[in-house]
Amino acid sequence: MSQQGKINVAVENIFPLIKKFLYSDHEIFLRELVSNATDATLKLKHLAMIGEANVELGDQQIEVKINKEDGTLHIIDQGLGMTEDEVQKYINDIAFSGAEEFLEKYKDSAKDSGIIGHFGLGFYSAFMVADKVEIITKSYKDEPAVHWSCDGSPNYTIEPAEKEHFGTEIILHISDDEKEFLEESKIRELLTKYNKFMPVPIKFGTKTETLEKPEGAKKDDPAPTKEVDNIINNPNPAWTKQPTELEDKDYKDFYRELYPMQFEEPLFHIHLNVDYPFNLTGILYFPKMTADLNVQKDRIQLYQNQVFVTDNVEGIVPEFLTMLRGVIDSPDIPLNVSRSYLQADGAVKKISSYITRKVADKLKSLFNEDRAAFEEKWNDIKIVIEYGMLSEDKFFEKSDAFALYPTVDGSFCTWDELMEKIKPAQTDKDGKTVVLYASNKEAQHSYLASAKAKGYEVLLLDSPIVSHLMQKLEQSKENVTFARVDADSVDNLIKKEEEQISKLSDDEKETLKKSITETIADTSYNVQVEAMSSDSAPFMITQPEFMRRMKEMQATGGGGMMGFGNMPDMYNLVVNANHELIQEIMATKTAKKKERLIKQSVDLAKLSQGLLKGEALTEFVNRSYELIK
Amino acid sequence: MSQQGKINVAVENIFPLIKKFLYSDHEIFLRELVSNATDATLKLKHLAMIGEANVELGDQQIEVKINKEDGTLHIIDQGLGMTEDEVQKYINDIAFSGAEEFLEKYKDSAKDSGIIGHFGLGFYSAFMVADKVEIITKSYKDEPAVHWSCDGSPNYTIEPAEKEHFGTEIILHISDDEKEFLEESKIRELLTKYNKFMPVPIKFGTKTETLEKPEGAKKDDPAPTKEVDNIINNPNPAWTKQPTELEDKDYKDFYRELYPMQFEEPLFHIHLNVDYPFNLTGILYFPKMTADLNVQKDRIQLYQNQVFVTDNVEGIVPEFLTMLRGVIDSPDIPLNVSRSYLQADGAVKKISSYITRKVADKLKSLFNEDRAAFEEKWNDIKIVIEYGMLSEDKFFEKSDAFALYPTVDGSFCTWDELMEKIKPAQTDKDGKTVVLYASNKEAQHSYLASAKAKGYEVLLLDSPIVSHLMQKLEQSKENVTFARVDADSVDNLIKKEEEQISKLSDDEKETLKKSITETIADTSYNVQVEAMSSDSAPFMITQPEFMRRMKEMQATGGGGMMGFGNMPDMYNLVVNANHELIQEIMATKTAKKKERLIKQSVDLAKLSQGLLKGEALTEFVNRSYELIK
Repeated sequence: MSQQGKINVAVENIFPLIKKFLYSDHEIFLRELVSNATDATLKLKHLAMIGEANVELGDQQIEVKINKEDGTLHIIDQGLGMTEDEVQKYINDIAFSGAEEFLEKYKDSAKDSGIIGHFGLGFYSAFMVADKVEIITKSYKDEPAVHWSCDGSPNYTIEPAEKEHFGTEIILHISDDEKEFLEESKIRELLTKYNKFMPVPIKFGTKTETLEKPEGAKKDDPAPTKEVDNIINNPNPAWTKQPTELEDKDYKDFYRELYPMQFEEPLFHIHLNVDYPFNLTGILYFPKMTADLNVQKDRIQLYQNQVFVTDNVEGIVPEFLTMLRGVIDSPDIPLNVSRSYLQADGAVKKISSYITRKVADKLKSLFNEDRAAFEEKWNDIKIVIEYGMLSEDKFFEKSDAFALYPTVDGSFCTWDELMEKIKPAQTDKDGKTVVLYASNKEAQHSYLASAKAKGYEVLLLDSPIVSHLMQKLEQSKENVTFARVDADSVDNLIKKEEEQISKLSDDEKETLKKSITETIADTSYNVQVEAMSSDSAPFMITQPEFMRRMKEMQATGGGGMMGFGNMPDMYNLVVNANHELIQEIMATKTAKKKERLIKQSVDLAKLSQGLLKGEALTEFVNRSYELIK
Repeated sequence: MSQQGKINVAVENIFPLIKKFLYSDHEIFLRELVSNATDATLKLKHLAMIGEANVELGDQQIEVKINKEDGTLHIIDQGLGMTEDEVQKYINDIAFSGAEEFLEKYKDSAKDSGIIGHFGLGFYSAFMVADKVEIITKSYKDEPAVHWSCDGSPNYTIEPAEKEHFGTEIILHISDDEKEFLEESKIRELLTKYNKFMPVPIKFGTKTETLEKPEGAKKDDPAPTKEVDNIINNPNPAWTKQPTELEDKDYKDFYRELYPMQFEEPLFHIHLNVDYPFNLTGILYFPKMTADLNVQKDRIQLYQNQVFVTDNVEGIVPEFLTMLRGVIDSPDIPLNVSRSYLQADGAVKKISSYITRKVADKLKSLFNEDRAAFEEKWNDIKIVIEYGMLSEDKFFEKSDAFALYPTVDGSFCTWDELMEKIKPAQTDKDGKTVVLYASNKEAQHSYLASAKAKGYEVLLLDSPIVSHLMQKLEQSKENVTFARVDADSVDNLIKKEEEQISKLSDDEKETLKKSITETIADTSYNVQVEAMSSDSAPFMITQPEFMRRMKEMQATGGGGMMGFGNMPDMYNLVVNANHELIQEIMATKTAKKKERLIKQSVDLAKLSQGLLKGEALTEFVNRSYELIK
């Protein structure tokens, strides 16, 4: 008693379906129709090339035209055109992909002709903006021209038409609530957004061109002008060419073409070009990364066969490279799928790791070819590189070849150079090499001055994510540890075997510690009296590395240890037992004078660490004005 | 010779089409199938209620079940069910919306029964994840049960089935590359994401419940347990109830239900409930706005008839309110359309301005009902309110009723109270009322101390966008201007008629200015010698309001004047001609001593403005240690 049948599609419901589900963006219709026109043009060219179409191709351009009076928008091509049978087949049967059939038939020869795609379904997107759509078309096969029209119901009319030249004209009767698509500025905007690099010239209106003056013209005569076609696209964008055909200037010009509002030049480019196991071309640019890192605008653009798809390449390009600019063109990236699906897709994974590898290779060769120029660019590119080192293990592995570590004096080392340079002086008694760094030359000046006076090398590591990067380096490299210059007194930053002799006895130290602790009366400072060289500062405030770094890592998102983000700041107040001023404080008899000496000294130590603020600073300043009088 | 015809849909292509275009997210299938099940359940309930279905409704729950062995996922409801004719009509004809027909028929009575939607098309989303789909269904009409199955080609089989209870079971044979949808954790995640508040109980597995111990049980006896249905949803979420049914605790509980990972309690809620001219319910919460304003997670959720749609409400809710949390449920918001389309949509505009109005009204009533509590919350809510004042004119107009201006002493004024308070003392000779403010109590301490000493009121305005807000207030209110306390010396911040008498002649002033300018040798400081009261500071660095504010506005995005962002900081070094120290400097004969006095004094002035840094600070500290010895 089992029955078989075939699922039926209720055609009455197909138009609302298309309107609602096909594309979330109405403006997409123009991209689809111009893609179809491009498709038809390239197909005809291909057939002519292989001798299957016997026609004069002509200039093969596509024209987009607005007729405000009639409320229509016209897309006119000089491509294949359609016979009546073909209209029946390609237009009246929805979801029949003409391009697929064509590709099947001319598989090998068509491969490189750049044929776009989804003929058939895209056409119906016209009904998202039009009440009525007409097609006037004449096949290159020299059959009679056909006029098709449909008002959005499933009923259509076909009749003979007058049309001399082969090709297709699509006429959209724009519906009342989509009138914006009759505005020249809107259409220009859409053509520029989606079709700027499509492979067939697209004419939209005319423009006035100034000609050279005829010989013998007077100085005051106006130069003659003429109206010429206004072609809105560049059919041969740089990324479709071979790197060998392009000079540095071409890359820069193309950057300007992509981002007309960008005034800064890119730092360098990476030309992507791969056929197997996936198809991908493109040019990526490293922009100057300025303080206002506006990654939202002027992003990498994704194309498929020169048709703009999106400028959201999240999931396709590894995250650390989304800060770059440029274009990627690949027919192998699935569209209209979720990000999580993209990330799981094998082809996309391969594309992503290919791009990562190419970027690493380019950085390596830039470094090797001209180290000085590379160093000069370091500050502008370090964010991308450091973020890549943190987030992509493959990139981290390759980074030793180009990642730089700048010193506070403005010189740059690779990791190996750094180790060679600092190992002798900066290895502690446990055999650990201590990399000293400052995060801010100004704020940590007195500390880095002490470290340099001791002959240590100090790096300047000031990227926001640098605490995470140090953590990673400490884990991957052997016997290396990082310490900020204000993490301890300079003698303790790198602990050596020798010990300083203290001028104070242990009892004296204890007494001094007690009286300082009582005077400052602030539990966030832990007083430590230590024997240091007599020319070190008398008082110094340090902040232990581990705690501070954990807090920083929490603040810059992720990593660190849970809970550290909310811990209060803790400091050590290191007192130099061997400094003259300390002797003087010990010797002072009157309690009041002693207190004033300690307070003023601790205030000065706080100043060096940027900790004297608000009312305390105002009091210090007023007190000091009194002192100089 | 014109022909008419009907557009035909090639069914062979409908499945790939559905897979590719229908939804960008595969996981959506479960939402669609559970929605259909809910739909069928509610419809039957409705028919029973109006006496058109003569059945025992039973518990009416929906069950979702995984069968790992067979690789199938089952969705089972106890709803309407379908007869063989209905399967033919609703399943075999794609895109026939059953719900629409039902709603048409039972228009008035169905209106409030919460019927969901798009029966028909949603079902086919099953093929996004399944190779083969089966339906076993029995209508409440007591006709024979039907078994339908289809392998994703357009061919289906229908045969009689054994099924006792009315309702429908959908069986998905999950395809090989979608195996994740056989994982319990994945299905639980999806049910929680999309169906957490659907109006029919959804069972997914069982859970163990601990029962009370029987009387006379020993202390060590384990409590008895039993397996009960695990219901994953709350069919009656708070927003579907009337505000009068709910207590404050219910709102807080619902917040916790919405955001189980949020530990902070919300500050207050706004219950939205409107029938006309659009349908909208919902509850918005003001969360505590902490420094790390993570607006990305735990956002406002959009539902349609209790089915989760998205947590991206951009375009629906005014931008300044996207920082809030909560739910909005409206069948009147068009889905699957672009943001730009949304923003132009009339209904959406009305919804957006309704929400704005409700929020403003709520703020006003909170302020009026308990001002002290409102003031306490101000710091947590001010970002939203200030951003709203800037971006929505309607909100700005209403904001006088609740926007607060905090003083540095921690008291709060409304705009009118502020004006009343400061007008007498802070109106300058041109009749402008000058609102003094600090952006940082610590950094500007010495300046605000001087202003307060003079009897002025100083506001604490420290939001990042406050420079834009001041600009807007200056434009909207009459004869008001804002000045930061360090914008000028306290005498000049609010210029009065009276003039201070100078102890220096104009010639002496000129000489002093020259020697100070030469000593500091820094063109970013413009030296001004002025007659001030003798107890004002001897030296002071000020930064003119206009320039600084333009720079700040540029830095926080937009506004300000082009080009100001890149201007260097410019300061005035104001020298108090009437201060004792100045007399002393004038009287000093040795050039070296004079220079030292000026340098130390200027350094102290720089300290108060936070301008002494790096090497200069280290030198100052070392010099000062010498001085105290």
